[in-house]
Amino acid sequence: MLGYAFMGDAHSRALAATRQLDGALDPRLVSISGRDEAAREEARSRLGWAEGVADWREQVADERVGLFVNGGPNSLHAEPAIAAARAGKHVLCEKPLARDAAEARATWQAAEEAEVVHMTGFNYRFVPAVRAARRIVESGELGEIVHFRARYLQSWGWDAPHSWRFDRSASGTGAIGDLGAHSIDLARYLVGEIASVSAVVRTFVPGREIDDAYVATVEFASGAIGTLEASRLATGRINHHAWEINGSKGSLAFDQERMNELLVGDARGFERVLEHGDWWPPGHIVGWGDTFTFEYLHLFGAIAGRHQVAPEGATFEDGYRCAEVCDAIVRSAASRAQQEVTYA
Amino acid sequence: MLGYAFMGDAHSRALAATRQLDGALDPRLVSISGRDEAAREEARSRLGWAEGVADWREQVADERVGLFVNGGPNSLHAEPAIAAARAGKHVLCEKPLARDAAEARATWQAAEEAEVVHMTGFNYRFVPAVRAARRIVESGELGEIVHFRARYLQSWGWDAPHSWRFDRSASGTGAIGDLGAHSIDLARYLVGEIASVSAVVRTFVPGREIDDAYVATVEFASGAIGTLEASRLATGRINHHAWEINGSKGSLAFDQERMNELLVGDARGFERVLEHGDWWPPGHIVGWGDTFTFEYLHLFGAIAGRHQVAPEGATFEDGYRCAEVCDAIVRSAASRAQQEVTYA
Amino acid sequence: MLGYAFMGDAHSRALAATRQLDGALDPRLVSISGRDEAAREEARSRLGWAEGVADWREQVADERVGLFVNGGPNSLHAEPAIAAARAGKHVLCEKPLARDAAEARATWQAAEEAEVVHMTGFNYRFVPAVRAARRIVESGELGEIVHFRARYLQSWGWDAPHSWRFDRSASGTGAIGDLGAHSIDLARYLVGEIASVSAVVRTFVPGREIDDAYVATVEFASGAIGTLEASRLATGRINHHAWEINGSKGSLAFDQERMNELLVGDARGFERVLEHGDWWPPGHIVGWGDTFTFEYLHLFGAIAGRHQVAPEGATFEDGYRCAEVCDAIVRSAASRAQQEVTYA
Amino acid sequence: MLGYAFMGDAHSRALAATRQLDGALDPRLVSISGRDEAAREEARSRLGWAEGVADWREQVADERVGLFVNGGPNSLHAEPAIAAARAGKHVLCEKPLARDAAEARATWQAAEEAEVVHMTGFNYRFVPAVRAARRIVESGELGEIVHFRARYLQSWGWDAPHSWRFDRSASGTGAIGDLGAHSIDLARYLVGEIASVSAVVRTFVPGREIDDAYVATVEFASGAIGTLEASRLATGRINHHAWEINGSKGSLAFDQERMNELLVGDARGFERVLEHGDWWPPGHIVGWGDTFTFEYLHLFGAIAGRHQVAPEGATFEDGYRCAEVCDAIVRSAASRAQQEVTYA
Repeated sequence: MLGYAFMGDAHSRALAATRQLDGALDPRLVSISGRDEAAREEARSRLGWAEGVADWREQVADERVGLFVNGGPNSLHAEPAIAAARAGKHVLCEKPLARDAAEARATWQAAEEAEVVHMTGFNYRFVPAVRAARRIVESGELGEIVHFRARYLQSWGWDAPHSWRFDRSASGTGAIGDLGAHSIDLARYLVGEIASVSAVVRTFVPGREIDDAYVATVEFASGAIGTLEASRLATGRINHHAWEINGSKGSLAFDQERMNELLVGDARGFERVLEHGDWWPPGHIVGWGDTFTFEYLHLFGAIAGRHQVAPEGATFEDGYRCAEVCDAIVRSAASRAQQEVTYA
Repeated sequence: MLGYAFMGDAHSRALAATRQLDGALDPRLVSISGRDEAAREEARSRLGWAEGVADWREQVADERVGLFVNGGPNSLHAEPAIAAARAGKHVLCEKPLARDAAEARATWQAAEEAEVVHMTGFNYRFVPAVRAARRIVESGELGEIVHFRARYLQSWGWDAPHSWRFDRSASGTGAIGDLGAHSIDLARYLVGEIASVSAVVRTFVPGREIDDAYVATVEFASGAIGTLEASRLATGRINHHAWEINGSKGSLAFDQERMNELLVGDARGFERVLEHGDWWPPGHIVGWGDTFTFEYLHLFGAIAGRHQVAPEGATFEDGYRCAEVCDAIVRSAASRAQQEVTYA
Repeated sequence: MLGYAFMGDAHSRALAATRQLDGALDPRLVSISGRDEAAREEARSRLGWAEGVADWREQVADERVGLFVNGGPNSLHAEPAIAAARAGKHVLCEKPLARDAAEARATWQAAEEAEVVHMTGFNYRFVPAVRAARRIVESGELGEIVHFRARYLQSWGWDAPHSWRFDRSASGTGAIGDLGAHSIDLARYLVGEIASVSAVVRTFVPGREIDDAYVATVEFASGAIGTLEASRLATGRINHHAWEINGSKGSLAFDQERMNELLVGDARGFERVLEHGDWWPPGHIVGWGDTFTFEYLHLFGAIAGRHQVAPEGATFEDGYRCAEVCDAIVRSAASRAQQEVTYA
Repeated sequence: MLGYAFMGDAHSRALAATRQLDGALDPRLVSISGRDEAAREEARSRLGWAEGVADWREQVADERVGLFVNGGPNSLHAEPAIAAARAGKHVLCEKPLARDAAEARATWQAAEEAEVVHMTGFNYRFVPAVRAARRIVESGELGEIVHFRARYLQSWGWDAPHSWRFDRSASGTGAIGDLGAHSIDLARYLVGEIASVSAVVRTFVPGREIDDAYVATVEFASGAIGTLEASRLATGRINHHAWEINGSKGSLAFDQERMNELLVGDARGFERVLEHGDWWPPGHIVGWGDTFTFEYLHLFGAIAGRHQVAPEGATFEDGYRCAEVCDAIVRSAASRAQQEVTYA
């Protein structure tokens, strides 16, 4: 694994927990890489990795490594992921897959050519309520889908200290790639490809290079229309990733802050249904960290050849397609006009 | 009053109730007009109007009439309202003020020139929680306002029988003018003028002339950005007019289906506060119909010279400015580009 | 009508509004009584009553009066109600019907003997969502009902100025008769007779004669069990009258602060359904005051012989039976033992 | 560890995760015991225990074992826990500590005499929102606490296959010990000792030995009053453990199905605050399983001598005191009278 911060914790914990859900699994944690030796060593020891290395290139060259997990900053996604794939490693890379669509496309192409298993870390696909939503959409129960709306609202941006997340060269974009990418991925997962976007992008806090917030309208290839929005400045909203689908026969609504609940709508209203998978007894909810465990269970199944990563999980192609929508958002804001989303 | 349907009921009931809240008031219900004699007579008798007349021109010419209330279909807003104003009557006209901005502007200008009191029936300004929201915004407690988002979702459109509400010549627009106008008015009331919009407008149900739904991004003159959306096809949503304001220090959120609640946000989350005015004891909620009573109390105060209609109530100017935003939504959808909103 | 305070407002407004919902109705407001002449005259004029009189005995003797409405303090319920019934007037008396079961029973018996129409003002039976709940219970959809729980929580008691509501001779009890009576009536309306209670009753605020709060367990004649609770000291709860029914096949839940919503439960969870009757279009909610209008529509139908007051409305017998449960609560608290509820 | 079912999973996963939150920890999983060899071996391998043994006595005699975790059925709580304590092992025993107060008291006394660290598995004390509630109560912010109400409602009891949970000799009680014990422990943790109870206990489903549901009123030693209730038959409620505290200055409310939220009440209403500890970034919620991790972190701190188990965690004394309340509930139901709770 590359990365020992927040994402390092989430991935390490999930790797350790997979065994409990599938007794056949027993992943070995070979090495963790990162430049700050003290921080890396603290994380290595605490998170249970056998070795710590300074340079990810050592990991890419390590024959013991079968899966390369990239949890580093956005600017460190493409190069290591491409190198790992070319070295024959399977690769799980955090989202956004890259800082823009070109970089994301190159990463996807490299993994495809290397014929390794590749996955973009859109962990919200593995929220049990989201999986249930996908099953309901697939069943046709909602009828003709006409609307999708999503907002991903946080509020830490008002007085956050500077970090790579505010730096254009390290991050690419701000709220768009950090938060919006999740909404875009779920829009594609649940409703299908996005055909056009029209957006306004804004930096409110003085001195920042990248966007604090964006708003957009979208047209789907299917004809459905919707809104997308993300902000790091929505006071009172902590991790409010809420989306809703409206169809001619039914609707679905969700909020990540209540990620164990799916609101299932019919003509009368919405029913609150607990959806937390089958790990624990009914009503014993799972947490955000558990989505990574579910993600790894799926990835290991794909590596073992039991199924494909797609469509249940997000491949690098999904990471690339999401990046095209992000790029179209940026173009639309600059041009003050609607932009079609085109895919290579 | 012109009109004896749904709006006739709401206005008549409110007129009768004003006396209870202000003992000095005792409005006389002179006459109700409408073409269908049987329906008009049933409404006249039940709603307590002294006379029924076939033609609104009789009302405009009636010296006993001091206030002309226009609750007819959109195509019958401008001409009677203008005629009544020119005859020196004060005028309350339902929203949308007209089918487009040109018609709305003519209505506004006529009323201004006639120097009568004029009001557009944006009754949601008189929801106690909305008034409380306005006070909070005015106080500066929210800090710098960066976002406004509103959605007005209903679902009756899927299998509604044909009515004037689906007819372009009678209505002008569909969801835009019927539902969206309310959101636009509250956006202006709470956050200020809208500088630009970018929209997608869609008719989903075959055979309809007008829009079932629209989605839009907006830029406010203040720099805030947001989304607006309305639909008659959102299964499970009955009268879900929900809006949210995010500022640097606080936020507010509201849903018309729970119109006695204001969600007041700070850095920790949102507090649910009951706001229902002071008619009944704490926690004894008011209903949708009561908003019309509050609207009339305000209007009568303006007629009596105790205050202006604006800014607490919406004048014809507000009806016109709202219509300019609606027109810009239509233009943006047609041009697939952002449109500036300009006011005469 | 006797009484010109809060209840005078609610009843007067409702009487005026009945005509709008049933064009055949046109109630004349003959006279309003009360001792304070200035307050009575202000209310008389504002609320639209023709005359004000100092003594309710004048009203009982007035041949023009067909219906006597008693909205006075609890100590003034029985005597005027009995006198009015004996004079052949139909009687609507506010809840609780009397200060204890003996007084309530005498009132009921007098009205029965006089063969007048009698109604106890349990207006919450006329909340559309409560009526919908009753229909669902009657349909058998819930299966075997096993639990009922209700809590009526307010918070104004901490620093309220002294009033008759804190005075034993005027009120009988505190939270029990004021708030608890509503819960008990709905328990009986929705689940059936209460067979036994066990209760703790408490006065927390020094210097008060009567209870600030009570808690109780109940057994129903049907075998179902439940809890009842009321308090005037529940900080943060404004008018939180919430109840829930659990059956083998389904459940229902309700909160008076969101009185237009009924939560309808099945094995998966609860669906939020808007129930506001058919006055306004879907999703346009009614308020607390409207429940009185619905109550009068029902009462006038009973006076006109179109139906009985029971079971949809509460008769004096219901007022009496509720009082027996209140008395049993008081006895149980004193004896620290379960008490059977017996009815005359 | 004794036990390999549901509780075995929860404890094993938590033990493995403690290391991530405290890098100094590295618990070794010595052995798991249980009678069914195949099931035990499957669990052993999957959950990461080194050995499987048929008889817990082997574990009690095993010198390598420092902590004995008892996750077996209620009838197997006391004897192994006592034996382990006498053998000098620290003991964590699942709740309810025993089938009745006498058995619980013996267990507590044995552990005290052996001077080992002992803990009852009331994991809900380790929900971050519950810990936050405790801090708020301790701070005095709520003023004088007057009410506590809790209900623990599930619905699986209607058509559950027979298991030890329905068997008197294995379980002691049904809903009382299984669900009610959690509410009683939190009542004691947050408000203080319970002085008296009055209860109704009911078995609704034919053929069952033990209670499906109970309802109770309680008096606290402090003077506060409240209600407690639990049921396995509340259709639509899945794991609804909801409690509320009302004080003169503030209130708190909680629902285990939304265990990351604490509702913090003041005079205006309730604010929804996310409380999920500091494992993940704001708004990234924890799950039910994580409460066991937090429980073990606390227990290991006590074993290391950094703090006592009490008051943050529940000792065997707490398990015993809870059992006294459970016994009083049973006695009260049998005697149809209020019962004082007395502690040895």
